[in-house]
Amino acid sequence: MGMLAENLQKLYQETGAEVICLETDFLRRYVTGFYSTDGYVVIDSAQCVFFADARYFEAAQKALAGSGVTVRLGAGKEADELLAGHKRVGVPFLYTNLARARELEARGFELVDCMKGLARAMLIKSEREIALIARACDIAEEGLLSTLPRIKEGMTEREVAAILEYEMRARGADGTSFETIVAFGAGSSVPHHETGDTKLKFGDVVLIDFGCKVEGYCSDCTRTFLFGDDGKHEQFKQHYACVLAAHEAVKRELKAGMTGREADEIARSCLREAGLDKYFTHSLGHGIGLNIHELPGLSPRSETALVDGMVFSDEPGVYFAGEYGIRIEDSVYLKEGSVCSFMKKTRRDLLIL
Amino acid sequence: MGMLAENLQKLYQETGAEVICLETDFLRRYVTGFYSTDGYVVIDSAQCVFFADARYFEAAQKALAGSGVTVRLGAGKEADELLAGHKRVGVPFLYTNLARARELEARGFELVDCMKGLARAMLIKSEREIALIARACDIAEEGLLSTLPRIKEGMTEREVAAILEYEMRARGADGTSFETIVAFGAGSSVPHHETGDTKLKFGDVVLIDFGCKVEGYCSDCTRTFLFGDDGKHEQFKQHYACVLAAHEAVKRELKAGMTGREADEIARSCLREAGLDKYFTHSLGHGIGLNIHELPGLSPRSETALVDGMVFSDEPGVYFAGEYGIRIEDSVYLKEGSVCSFMKKTRRDLLIL
Repeated sequence: MGMLAENLQKLYQETGAEVICLETDFLRRYVTGFYSTDGYVVIDSAQCVFFADARYFEAAQKALAGSGVTVRLGAGKEADELLAGHKRVGVPFLYTNLARARELEARGFELVDCMKGLARAMLIKSEREIALIARACDIAEEGLLSTLPRIKEGMTEREVAAILEYEMRARGADGTSFETIVAFGAGSSVPHHETGDTKLKFGDVVLIDFGCKVEGYCSDCTRTFLFGDDGKHEQFKQHYACVLAAHEAVKRELKAGMTGREADEIARSCLREAGLDKYFTHSLGHGIGLNIHELPGLSPRSETALVDGMVFSDEPGVYFAGEYGIRIEDSVYLKEGSVCSFMKKTRRDLLIL
Repeated sequence: MGMLAENLQKLYQETGAEVICLETDFLRRYVTGFYSTDGYVVIDSAQCVFFADARYFEAAQKALAGSGVTVRLGAGKEADELLAGHKRVGVPFLYTNLARARELEARGFELVDCMKGLARAMLIKSEREIALIARACDIAEEGLLSTLPRIKEGMTEREVAAILEYEMRARGADGTSFETIVAFGAGSSVPHHETGDTKLKFGDVVLIDFGCKVEGYCSDCTRTFLFGDDGKHEQFKQHYACVLAAHEAVKRELKAGMTGREADEIARSCLREAGLDKYFTHSLGHGIGLNIHELPGLSPRSETALVDGMVFSDEPGVYFAGEYGIRIEDSVYLKEGSVCSFMKKTRRDLLIL
């Protein structure tokens, strides 16, 4: 945890601010490792102070002993006292609201953006972060595996989501990492389908896009199934094989040093060869961490170089409006130059429920 | 829905801005009634336009036909085109990040805060909003009632939370309105206890603070139980009766026209008479709507007058560190000058599980 203090000082030096003030929950969690719904982190040349209110003070003191982070009892007023005497205050522009910004400016502070440095640091996950994401992925997969045998004809999308969320929660998830998508039949052709009261019928395509959180860290997974084979799914099966091939090609061919655009192109060119690229209407993937969508982007527009320690999704998909959609998604990371999947328990080849 | 357009124009006129731009999901939902994860609402003297991307365009067109809201295909670029030619742009300062604000200012716009007008409008709930909150409360209570008989010795807090969340979800909730608090034994003495792996023992106090969402609208409820009566709870039972008396006094005595401070004082004076006010370490309640915590505040510091149509929590509590806590909370609203509770199905008197 001496490393923590070191990282904070590096971050501090990068911003060019005299003092940094963080008020957003996931950013506080990122820099200290301690979670609280409220609190303030102030970093200057000499120290990193976490101001916790009475609810969190004792727990924070215990958790952060020896970490290089000083815990003090207090809130905004106490944090502001530590800013006094400084001129240039670093705040994350993307997570600072204009009301707070105007208040700080009215007190004579000059605000500079510390989000770039933070975002760059957050791009590369530590071993601890990788382990937490791995746990979130593990729970998500186990949750899915215990949900699948319970899916019956006539159930609603919402009921299936409720079972899956229960199974993840009971295994130690703190909650979902985003609103669970369960789509039956034609609903699967809408990439961001809203889980509703549609009932499951024999022969339906079933698309489930889901994930959970462990200590704030997210998992993200999508599987597409057939609920019984009514013999009318020859084209679906061909398309499924193409999406799976694109998904697997990314795992095989994506190497550290490639850009997000080049990664996306691996899947897109696979689908292009099958004449399916125009049905691949979103990008290949997104970074995953304390936020379900973060950097790096794996899209035709991303020139970010992908390197070891980055965590992201590999999720090619094709969508035929009013008919069906297919998406196959793993959360993965780069290690020793190659892709490692966090998903080790669920199958990716077509499963008939 | 003609009313919607009228309200929007009233809001527009109040801000003094030439044009208003809303980008935050719950604010878009509030002004249009339509939910989307992304989108832009632009209101000027002549019109209210919702810019939806390809995912939402068709559904938004259908939902908002005849509402006075024009739906157009587009995103930030298209919304920004509608701002061009204006000088004073109204944005909600509290929900506008500094990066976006700087971008708008760099393009020559003068930003004015439209959040006060919005917050004032959001304080008073419409019949539709009351009905949605009532549904969220109903589902929460039904969820609790089907959870209670399943609580067994040795279960963890997390398992109980998982069952409760499942029961709410299966009944039509879109998700929880905040992280479910399940606290066993001494954990109940921490008002914001983090649900964990503590196992339930005979004689434990059980505190459950929970709620769900229906079309974005929240419910909030707390009940405190005994898991079996080991005969060592005489003081607990006395304290329970005091908290319940404070809770019921608020329902009986709180009348429209009182301030948040006066409402809080009803409960606080009840507890004071019993010598318990120093253990009532938080405020009586908070507004409930699309956010789980919103205006009005019911606290010693709130001079807001409470009027018909406001929805808030009535949640007195007492906390004895390391021993136990008791909180009894209903979501309620003001109607014809008096308090109506949304909670009609669960008991408030002490239940031994």
